[in-house]
Amino acid sequence: MDYSSKYSYRVNYVRPSPIRTLVSKISEISAARRVISFAAGEPDPGVIPRGLYARILAEVLEEEEKSCNYSPTEGIPSLRRAIASFMEDYEGVKSVEDEIIVTIGGSQAIDLIGKIFIDPGDHVIVENPSYVNTIVNWEFYGARLVGVGVESDGLNVDRLESVVKSLLSEGRRVKLVYTIPTGHNPAGVVMSDEKRRHLIEVASRYDLIVVEDGAYNHLVYEGSFKPLSYYDKEGRVVYVGSFSKVLGTGLRIGWIRARRELVELLKAIKGPSDMCAPVPLQHLVERILRKRLFDEIKKKAVEEYRRKRDAMIEALDEYVQGVAYNKPLGGMFVMVRLPSSIDSEEFANILLEKYSVAVVPGKPFYLDDSGKNTIRLNFTMVSLGEITEGVKKIGVAVRMFS
Amino acid sequence: MDYSSKYSYRVNYVRPSPIRTLVSKISEISAARRVISFAAGEPDPGVIPRGLYARILAEVLEEEEKSCNYSPTEGIPSLRRAIASFMEDYEGVKSVEDEIIVTIGGSQAIDLIGKIFIDPGDHVIVENPSYVNTIVNWEFYGARLVGVGVESDGLNVDRLESVVKSLLSEGRRVKLVYTIPTGHNPAGVVMSDEKRRHLIEVASRYDLIVVEDGAYNHLVYEGSFKPLSYYDKEGRVVYVGSFSKVLGTGLRIGWIRARRELVELLKAIKGPSDMCAPVPLQHLVERILRKRLFDEIKKKAVEEYRRKRDAMIEALDEYVQGVAYNKPLGGMFVMVRLPSSIDSEEFANILLEKYSVAVVPGKPFYLDDSGKNTIRLNFTMVSLGEITEGVKKIGVAVRMFS
Repeated sequence: MDYSSKYSYRVNYVRPSPIRTLVSKISEISAARRVISFAAGEPDPGVIPRGLYARILAEVLEEEEKSCNYSPTEGIPSLRRAIASFMEDYEGVKSVEDEIIVTIGGSQAIDLIGKIFIDPGDHVIVENPSYVNTIVNWEFYGARLVGVGVESDGLNVDRLESVVKSLLSEGRRVKLVYTIPTGHNPAGVVMSDEKRRHLIEVASRYDLIVVEDGAYNHLVYEGSFKPLSYYDKEGRVVYVGSFSKVLGTGLRIGWIRARRELVELLKAIKGPSDMCAPVPLQHLVERILRKRLFDEIKKKAVEEYRRKRDAMIEALDEYVQGVAYNKPLGGMFVMVRLPSSIDSEEFANILLEKYSVAVVPGKPFYLDDSGKNTIRLNFTMVSLGEITEGVKKIGVAVRMFS
Repeated sequence: MDYSSKYSYRVNYVRPSPIRTLVSKISEISAARRVISFAAGEPDPGVIPRGLYARILAEVLEEEEKSCNYSPTEGIPSLRRAIASFMEDYEGVKSVEDEIIVTIGGSQAIDLIGKIFIDPGDHVIVENPSYVNTIVNWEFYGARLVGVGVESDGLNVDRLESVVKSLLSEGRRVKLVYTIPTGHNPAGVVMSDEKRRHLIEVASRYDLIVVEDGAYNHLVYEGSFKPLSYYDKEGRVVYVGSFSKVLGTGLRIGWIRARRELVELLKAIKGPSDMCAPVPLQHLVERILRKRLFDEIKKKAVEEYRRKRDAMIEALDEYVQGVAYNKPLGGMFVMVRLPSSIDSEEFANILLEKYSVAVVPGKPFYLDDSGKNTIRLNFTMVSLGEITEGVKKIGVAVRMFS
């Protein structure tokens, strides 16, 4: 039988994930020879205390009779309370249990927010570049995405304001503004406090909902930043949280913090589709928070990744000429702008094939061509030695290409 | 700020889950006094070997360096292979790894199938009654649901054929037929082999895609049944599988078996929204299958639930007059049709408040009013003593109401 005549319009928006395509190619090549991969977006397995998790899970499975049964859609009550306290302790955002819904990582949270707000043809504003999965999730709901540039101190908020003004004056519906203020993926920048305040003012002026992706909020290497939610007094910010980047991406435990009425609707939209987040792992995270173990795990990760970030910046300074990048204050990535003559997709292909070094070309993160000479480098999943060796090879390849 | 003007059309389809509303009410009342609840749809925690799970998870976390990192969206390769073998060993359906995608339980599988096939206004056919979450998930994508009745040996396939014919003759697009052939939720019936063959013939004749929900396929108390996929030679059946009902609903590990091209598209639709199913739990299930432990867990569950089913049928025979029900050959539920004068929502309310017995009224499972005097009784989460005591009280309440 022929399925193709039966697919929904969403299938037209399907695009092969550039990262997953790359990952398959990397694993193919890795079978034959060693590859240094800067392509990841994940914590180093070496900093995840899996032995501790095994001990806590044994406790959970012994003590919690219903730990392998359904939980409420919104999460086990003790985890929701623990996350509400976490928002207060770590983010300075006073929260209560009813404002928290536990999700399958931050990615499901973003998908659900799109599902609840976006009608086909609605405009949403994302940073340019932005997180690929947000772009794809929201396109499936028929969103028209408008990109606003990112500077070394984050989203260009002045430009955002003029874009919103002009869309509204054309009679467009602007539903959401999506931003990753801290540890931006892929841009590797952190939004300044001043811009955070300004963004909230603009959102208030034009009656916008801001979706704040806080996935990297706990990987900050210099200074400290309050989330947008902290500046928001009107309930405009829908906060997407995740434990993935510190506790492990495989656990799939994230959350949304939003006003109660929105959490109620999110429950109704989410329930039929996933029932609940995996229950033994909800209990695992709840006990990590309750036993105050998060700090220690986070501290180890931040120290490790700061060293790696420093090594990457040093290597870039030393071995790669004619490129531009920021030293990221947080997150997992350095975005490198290659000489403008270089097409980064072609560059990444040759780098992988000839030099056995994997990087992610920036293009799929952009809504236009302005990122066609950028590459994204991850520094968390590689060793210090690999960083130096890999970046050296990038330097050689850039010289070859220029 | 006022969110209400910003919601998508989907929010119009949001309905409070009758089961979750009931569950909150039950837990409220349970705080004050003992409640016998026939409202669940879950395995008895007493048959889930949580100690074994703890030991296997300790192995996984020690041996699998990346067990807390992302897996491929479609699942860890060894689990996909194990599920392909499982389909062959337990269902008689020869399968390969590329035909399997691991999901967050059967519910996400059903949601994804709707996402990939349903355009607003498309017609889909479901059994009347059907699984509430399928109805709600697919309404969010704009499906128009058409119900076809269920008899004591399953879906009325003749009626299905005439409904399809008439829809097609009116120029409607009929995208999917959804069925739970084994252990129907909520009807408590199993489709006969003859009807299974017939359904596949009808699907072939009218070029239909059949979504087979196999969630209860491993809870069969009498006889054995081949899944629809077994009879399908044209790739029309999209099979939804789940380990929830045997291994535990909290693990959230299910799958879809479908043709490769469909699995490829499902990967592209699923990836951005959940990244992957929880990885330590994927490994747990993979090892349960690899170590051939599923059989033992299933055997214990089937024996336990068969005893409970028998006790429930005996109690209904003895203590409740003027009602109709089937002895279910599989699954977790007995559906009871009360005297037609009784409104089952009112009945369920009074039963809970006055008799401290919880049942789920059938109405939300139906697309019309034909279920307004039905109630769904779960027999897996209650003890034998509770079954007798609770059903006796139902008998008293039915006499009071009649």
